[in-house]
Amino acid sequence: MQRYFVDAKQIQGNQIVIDNDDAHHIVRVMRMAEGSEVIVSDGAARTVKARIDHIAGKSVTLSIVEELPQRAEAAWRVTIAQGLPKGDKMELIMQKCTEIGAASFIPFSSERVIVQYDHKKEAKRLERWSKIVKEAAEQSHRDFIPTLEEPKSWKELLALIPSYDLALFCYERAGDEGHGIGLKGALEKFKQAGDANTNDNQPSILLIAGPEGGFAEREATEAEAAGAILIGLGRRILRAETAGIVGLSCILYESGEMGGV
Amino acid sequence: MQRYFVDAKQIQGNQIVIDNDDAHHIVRVMRMAEGSEVIVSDGAARTVKARIDHIAGKSVTLSIVEELPQRAEAAWRVTIAQGLPKGDKMELIMQKCTEIGAASFIPFSSERVIVQYDHKKEAKRLERWSKIVKEAAEQSHRDFIPTLEEPKSWKELLALIPSYDLALFCYERAGDEGHGIGLKGALEKFKQAGDANTNDNQPSILLIAGPEGGFAEREATEAEAAGAILIGLGRRILRAETAGIVGLSCILYESGEMGGV
Repeated sequence: MQRYFVDAKQIQGNQIVIDNDDAHHIVRVMRMAEGSEVIVSDGAARTVKARIDHIAGKSVTLSIVEELPQRAEAAWRVTIAQGLPKGDKMELIMQKCTEIGAASFIPFSSERVIVQYDHKKEAKRLERWSKIVKEAAEQSHRDFIPTLEEPKSWKELLALIPSYDLALFCYERAGDEGHGIGLKGALEKFKQAGDANTNDNQPSILLIAGPEGGFAEREATEAEAAGAILIGLGRRILRAETAGIVGLSCILYESGEMGGV
Repeated sequence: MQRYFVDAKQIQGNQIVIDNDDAHHIVRVMRMAEGSEVIVSDGAARTVKARIDHIAGKSVTLSIVEELPQRAEAAWRVTIAQGLPKGDKMELIMQKCTEIGAASFIPFSSERVIVQYDHKKEAKRLERWSKIVKEAAEQSHRDFIPTLEEPKSWKELLALIPSYDLALFCYERAGDEGHGIGLKGALEKFKQAGDANTNDNQPSILLIAGPEGGFAEREATEAEAAGAILIGLGRRILRAETAGIVGLSCILYESGEMGGV
């Protein structure tokens, strides 16, 4: 069943009003009629099944049929911190990582980021990214829309590292140079430590991936000093837009999102 | 160091001749000069470091500096069987899965494949896919270029299932319907069984992912009867082009490609 995210204020008592792009999607793309049912989520605490009562122009009015349990969220809350890549690669990262189950995104600048971040265009770009994240969350049946933060500087990102239960820094040279370990080693160690603390069943993890040129050695040193673990993602060189997708898949796999004991 | 794949016949004694697109890449894109060094692989058994001796038009002549050990290949040989998706999604799948470490690709048709496979355009499409796989193998520093098979019918794919040590069938309804298990459960079981057979340290795994509409229930039943295990990739709905990327990442993670014990 098709899923739409609305603002909590669009739900009034038993009635929901959907307008703008989502109304267009319901009427023109899905060609639904009055009587059709969809899933509506407020992107936070509430998910319901709703029936279309009335379609008028660009506004669709629905009534709630039943409350639904929330069930599609990962137990580990993973934030993807991504060094700003060139072109439309950030869009691919956000779309795929939303499907896979990321909790939030932090774009950031670092030494080897090539794109000039244009503050005039910032609002427009954030708006476009938000739209991609929302649509991917709807299509993949997420209960929440991942949060999207405004681009941070390298120093701002460093300052955030200690606030996470685990911070992983994707470093091409991890392993080769005798510093850093594989992702699996880091996660196994984290799980063992976590077993001692049964209160924390929603650990927060920060996965830091670089831009096309990777990270400067100085940045790896600074991240490690701030508490991040330098990790490798295997012996092959992954493109900037691939590391986050692969790392997130493996983190959620290890957390038990894909079955297993 | 930049890596190029050549045909074995381009290596004669101590000399290598690179022409066409790769020569263009060396001269125009990388702007290398005589004396520069690159890695050259024959895509099969041999990888060498070579120095550029001479650049003439669209031909670059190199001499071998040293033989290199092969080291970038995954212990588990994973074949991605992908139901033909719309648009250019197959290109994304092939590029990303080559980076991550797939051994080969089998595109196939099934009930819900929407694209009309045009035999006239087949040669051109295979050529384009081959180019993408080769370039991704070069950029990610693979020792081998993954093999790319011609598109198969559903029946042809079914017949191939028993030839793999493990065949995994990505099925959205696995788990929900009480049949099928999570990917992690299937891999853990496979590893336990594998420990009994120490001769087989390069197991072959077939990962089958569907087109946009997923698989018909009949197809899941047929795949299971042929020996495939129906698996889920978590509670979120992944797009057609995402399932293979996520599944491959997790399989190689479980195989120990990203460290761990």
